[in-house]
Formats: sequence, C-alpha cells, structure tokens
Amino acid sequence: MLITSLTNSKIKNYLKLKNKKYRYQEKLYLIEGEHLVKEALKNNILVDLLVLENYEVTYQIPYTYVTKEIMKKLSSLESIPNMIGIVKMLESSKIKGSKVLLLDDIQDPGNLGTIIRSSLAFNVTDIVLGLNSVDLYNEKVIRSTQGMLFKVNILRRDLKEVIKELKEKDYLILGTNVQKGIDIKEIKPSKYALIMGNEGQGVKKEILALCDKNIYIKMNNDCESLNVAVATSILLYELSRC
Amino acid sequence: MLITSLTNSKIKNYLKLKNKKYRYQEKLYLIEGEHLVKEALKNNILVDLLVLENYEVTYQIPYTYVTKEIMKKLSSLESIPNMIGIVKMLESSKIKGSKVLLLDDIQDPGNLGTIIRSSLAFNVTDIVLGLNSVDLYNEKVIRSTQGMLFKVNILRRDLKEVIKELKEKDYLILGTNVQKGIDIKEIKPSKYALIMGNEGQGVKKEILALCDKNIYIKMNNDCESLNVAVATSILLYELSRC
Repeated sequence: MLITSLTNSKIKNYLKLKNKKYRYQEKLYLIEGEHLVKEALKNNILVDLLVLENYEVTYQIPYTYVTKEIMKKLSSLESIPNMIGIVKMLESSKIKGSKVLLLDDIQDPGNLGTIIRSSLAFNVTDIVLGLNSVDLYNEKVIRSTQGMLFKVNILRRDLKEVIKELKEKDYLILGTNVQKGIDIKEIKPSKYALIMGNEGQGVKKEILALCDKNIYIKMNNDCESLNVAVATSILLYELSRC
Repeated sequence: MLITSLTNSKIKNYLKLKNKKYRYQEKLYLIEGEHLVKEALKNNILVDLLVLENYEVTYQIPYTYVTKEIMKKLSSLESIPNMIGIVKMLESSKIKGSKVLLLDDIQDPGNLGTIIRSSLAFNVTDIVLGLNSVDLYNEKVIRSTQGMLFKVNILRRDLKEVIKELKEKDYLILGTNVQKGIDIKEIKPSKYALIMGNEGQGVKKEILALCDKNIYIKMNNDCESLNVAVATSILLYELSRC
C-alpha cells in the first residue's frame, strides 16, 4: 500500500507526534532511519512503520509505503530517511538495578543521548531525569542514543524524592567535586547512584547536599572541566570496573 | 568609542570572518562571550575586542563599544553575547610532544570541540586534523572547546604523511578495533599517536593498516560503539595514567 496524501488521517496523526504535548498524550514517538527501526524491532516496541516508496524492506513486518513528500514532512533531518518508525513509550516509575544514574536537568539533546548510549555500554540501565530535563523523545536525543534508548529503564521524577528512596535502600549517593572529591579510581561501590549536573550550573546545591561522597576525575589543572557527557562516561566506565 | 553603523569598515571586515575562506585569508576568527575572551587574553592571542554598549568591562585592554544590532549580526548565537573577540590563528606544522592525537576527518563540530577540550584535560597538546575534517574555526567547534583550543598545538595535514614521520621518530601508532584489539588498560606507551575516526565510517582502511597496535574499551556487548568524543576521551584518560 502507498499513501500519497498529506491529509491521510494516519499521516496527519503521525505528523502531530512532532509536537511534545501530543507525543505524551498518545504515548508514541517517531524514530528515523533503518538502524533505529531495527533496534526498535529487536526490542518489540515498534507500533507501525512507514517506508519510502521503492525502498526494499528485507524483514517480515507490516509496513506502509509513503511518498518522498510525506517522508520529508515527517522527518527532522536534512536528508530524507528510508524509513520512519512509530514507537511506543516505555513508561517506568521504578528503579530496577543496583547502579543508577541521576541527571539534574541536562539541557543539550546531544549530551543526553550520548549519556544514554554510554550508560548502556557501562552496564547502567536505570536513569532518572530531573523534571526540567530536555525531552527524552526530542529527535536529537533519540538519534544520539543510537538505539540504546530502547534498552534502558528511564524515569522522569523529582530527584530529591528519588534520592531519599535510594538512601533508604542503601545506595551510595555520589556527587562530583573537583576541589574536594575523591579520585574515582579510589572507590568501588557495588550499589550506587551517581548524580550529574546541568551543562551550565552543575548539580543544584540542595541536591549536592544529599550526597554521601563526592568524586572527581584526575586531570590537567589548565582545564576547568569536561563536557558533561564525557565526564559521565568516564565515571561510569570507571565504576563499571567495580 | 561606540560604533553604530553596520557599514563601518571595521565591522564590515569582521562580518566577513563568518566566512571560512576569508578567515583563512586574514588568519583571524571570531570568538563569542566573556569566558572565551578571557581565555584568549590569557593566551595572548586577542587582536581586537567589541563590547555590547553599556556592558562594563573590568579588565584593562583597548576595546570598542558596538550596538545591539551590530552584535546580533556578528553573533551566531540566539542570545546576543556581551562581547566578541577577534583572535589570530595559531599556525603550526610541527608536532612538539610525545603524545599525539590524529583525527581522521571528524565531521561534527561539537565532537571536535569536545575532543580538543578533553585532550588538554588529559595532557595531549598535539592534535592533527585530517584534510577533510570540519573547520577548526567553525563557531560550534570553538564554543565546545571552552577555550582549550587556545592552549593546544593543532595541525591540519595529510594523516598518512604524518604517521610516516611519527613512525620514524618511534611513536607507537595506536588504532582502535573492538573485535581484535588490546584492552586499553593493558598498554602504557610513553610515546604514542592515537588515531580516531570519523563518526560514520571510522578510521579509513589505508590508515588503519599503518597502526602498530589496536586498542579497545571494554564495554557491554549490547552496545555497538560509543560516541567518538566519549571514546577518545576515555582512551586519552587511560593513556594519561601511563
């Protein structure tokens, strides 16, 4: 089947998913390109698939062909993707593992996506986003996760409340402090929550005050700080060796 | 002094610096915001300074006030910066240290800037960009370096030629290979050149063939790869412990 009209009711509904409010109402979002579609398929969360007319699909799932014009309208990329998937949001309110990452209002979509990708690489599959974080289903976030988004348990909650609960369950709460921290090489917690801050302001004071320990990454004094996605990745890399 | 006209000859010349060709012709580029201006000042490479009218400058250097309209035209940011500096390019064709980073045509400006920032953090101050790399003086690259750009020796050269020279000087040439590499924890070279590849294609085959050893970062098998800025940072972090 080929859809050729932008006023087709299915297409009209999917176009609305470019709007954050509507995404949360429908609990659906769009993903672009074959790599992400394959990852979504593997994780059983693909709801529908639109394919660019004449593009050959080699796997056995139902899909609908659409014109270049429709694909262009749905896409946020400069070059039109071969396919766009419609994916259901995985909602969670519970932390499942012993290694947790708390993100205090990350703003840059590329940073958030990169952090999610690194988290999975270093065996952290519970991530809590603060309430003012950039939207998880922003197309740039999704692209930067390289599909790892589908494999991670992500919550959006008030971080202070989450920390209180984690403390009761004996998680070691880790903040970062370049001046007065412990070298990350020197600790090996088996059950922890690492808090990382916003690009401009870092972690909020009232949240830092709840930390059991502060850690830091040893580096040249000429450099004030690292990019937040880089710093998070190095800390999780080190902690994965525990 | 206050410049109010966009047709002022100085402003007209500085506006041209937004164009890559003109930047290289004049060997000058623009930097935005007080943080970068201060870093440029510390490194003695600030040639001129434009300040938004009514903004108070607390350091003792010559500068010129400009109107909001001029600042907006010069800036690439959505929010107008308080100041824009004009900086001279530092040109280099020689590698100076014993730890070198070679970048095989990185395309994303944020990645390149982040890599430069991390390099300085982990004591690598010689970086060679391949000939098809994103422009070093792209405004997003500059912003992502957080001023570390001014402290690093950066060359743009044919990587194959550079590798040949480095081999003659006994640098260990390191590539990356997730399947057949050595865990980065297991080597501690004192004199090395690390080659990192492009976001999509990785390192070119003919360049990989010149490597003495391939290394990798131990990670979860569910994750195919890391963001290139993250991977580079973790490798340089580990190598800085040599």
